[in-house]
Amino acid sequence: MTLKIAYLGPTGTNTETAGLAYLNWLEQQKKVGVLCPYPSITQTLKAVSENQADLAVVPVENSTQGSVTITLDTIWELDHLKITHALILPIHHALISPQSSFDQINTVFSHPQALAQCQHWLEDHLPKAQLVASNSTTEALQRLDKEANIAAIASPRAAQLYNLPILVDNINDYPENKTRFWVLGQESGTGASQISLAFSLPANVPGALMNPLSIFYRRGINLSRIESRPTKRSLGEYLFFIDLEVHDNQESVQSALVELETHTEVLKIFGNYNVLNIE
Amino acid sequence: MTLKIAYLGPTGTNTETAGLAYLNWLEQQKKVGVLCPYPSITQTLKAVSENQADLAVVPVENSTQGSVTITLDTIWELDHLKITHALILPIHHALISPQSSFDQINTVFSHPQALAQCQHWLEDHLPKAQLVASNSTTEALQRLDKEANIAAIASPRAAQLYNLPILVDNINDYPENKTRFWVLGQESGTGASQISLAFSLPANVPGALMNPLSIFYRRGINLSRIESRPTKRSLGEYLFFIDLEVHDNQESVQSALVELETHTEVLKIFGNYNVLNIE
Repeated sequence: MTLKIAYLGPTGTNTETAGLAYLNWLEQQKKVGVLCPYPSITQTLKAVSENQADLAVVPVENSTQGSVTITLDTIWELDHLKITHALILPIHHALISPQSSFDQINTVFSHPQALAQCQHWLEDHLPKAQLVASNSTTEALQRLDKEANIAAIASPRAAQLYNLPILVDNINDYPENKTRFWVLGQESGTGASQISLAFSLPANVPGALMNPLSIFYRRGINLSRIESRPTKRSLGEYLFFIDLEVHDNQESVQSALVELETHTEVLKIFGNYNVLNIE
Repeated sequence: MTLKIAYLGPTGTNTETAGLAYLNWLEQQKKVGVLCPYPSITQTLKAVSENQADLAVVPVENSTQGSVTITLDTIWELDHLKITHALILPIHHALISPQSSFDQINTVFSHPQALAQCQHWLEDHLPKAQLVASNSTTEALQRLDKEANIAAIASPRAAQLYNLPILVDNINDYPENKTRFWVLGQESGTGASQISLAFSLPANVPGALMNPLSIFYRRGINLSRIESRPTKRSLGEYLFFIDLEVHDNQESVQSALVELETHTEVLKIFGNYNVLNIE
């Protein structure tokens, strides 16, 4: 059976690079997959929840810009999505343009995360350029054929794929720029190194956040990440997204999750998975 | 003495509305202020740290979209900024355009937060429109004179100020849309209801986050918010922004802050302030 893997496309995105690394890993497990591009993160995730695809690859967090909030908000909203792996990928951004000097560039297209990861560089080198959000880094490249005085920010690999000239390479503000992706499907793994979950809290309970956190603290379970998102119902009400480290403490993690249920309003456990580092 | 108050302008932004409410409050304290627009959040905050202004008003958090990350990242980076008040303002977005039908609109300009707060509405009503980021909601209005097939998202007040037609009012996805602003200066208040702080953690210490959180837990101090931001040094390393509730527990809060210092790498206390609700 060939696994259909949805990703944020079109071809040339960093998410595709992560997806290709995942295909390699699948091959080592004697499994076969095929990558299918989708135009937005929401549509990529819906492809799995609506049974159009077996797995989805989406960015979840960048080392410079932080959470990809649309990913967190969407997996909270959609049911039945489970994380099967995390993938960590180094990200290099290039300024791609048919122009040969900065003076001729009045507009820069890219995904908002890529624009944000290069914001200091853009302020220094193209302070007057208009920054325009696209759905993905490679969608931005499609503009380059149509208008003269523009540039796009995408990966050097995308420039090569679409046969477009790189004006400046490595324009990300921080050299150690990495993105974590999640592979999601309808079934979770077991016995792996990370658990991700999210919960909302009963309204107007004093100390409501510290009660669930203390469940992990008392058991010595390490939280590798905690991220809050608004519930969108009311200012000051949050969802909490938490990553737990699991090693030889499987039993205490399981008892913590049981106790957690009693201190939360809605609790969603997104899965137990391993992390693959991509070079 | 007239206080010079920097805000994210130009005139007509929601930040200006918050600033005007703050001027009213100042007047009740027999103080006088004048609002000065700045073109970006970073420049608004730098106006205070570089002594061009006495105070700055910037958005920090929205009930639909969450943190204004550039505000958090900039106050961490700049030294000597202290919060003197929080302001909470209801936010209504309008689609402003000289066009009379959606078919004629191919581009929508606004601040990225406003575009995000209206994303479902935009997907439903203008699915093909290009979304272009501007520095503020009212900067977007300046485009309307220049091009025909465009619209901007800004407040009804901005439409009135610039004498521009509202095509649809109240297009925000969630009716209970509110933004929290901070007023920042070089000196903090004392004896108020909230304390905001941020810290980084020593690298590679297991349970590093739970140690500081347990300091508050053990004392029964409520955290009304916890937000993580990347340190930008390395994926998985975070800064934590925390809001504490202070009431008749001033002494235990002070002892918690002393203990916190020993568990953090860098600790910045942004101030002790009250919240003003604006109707």
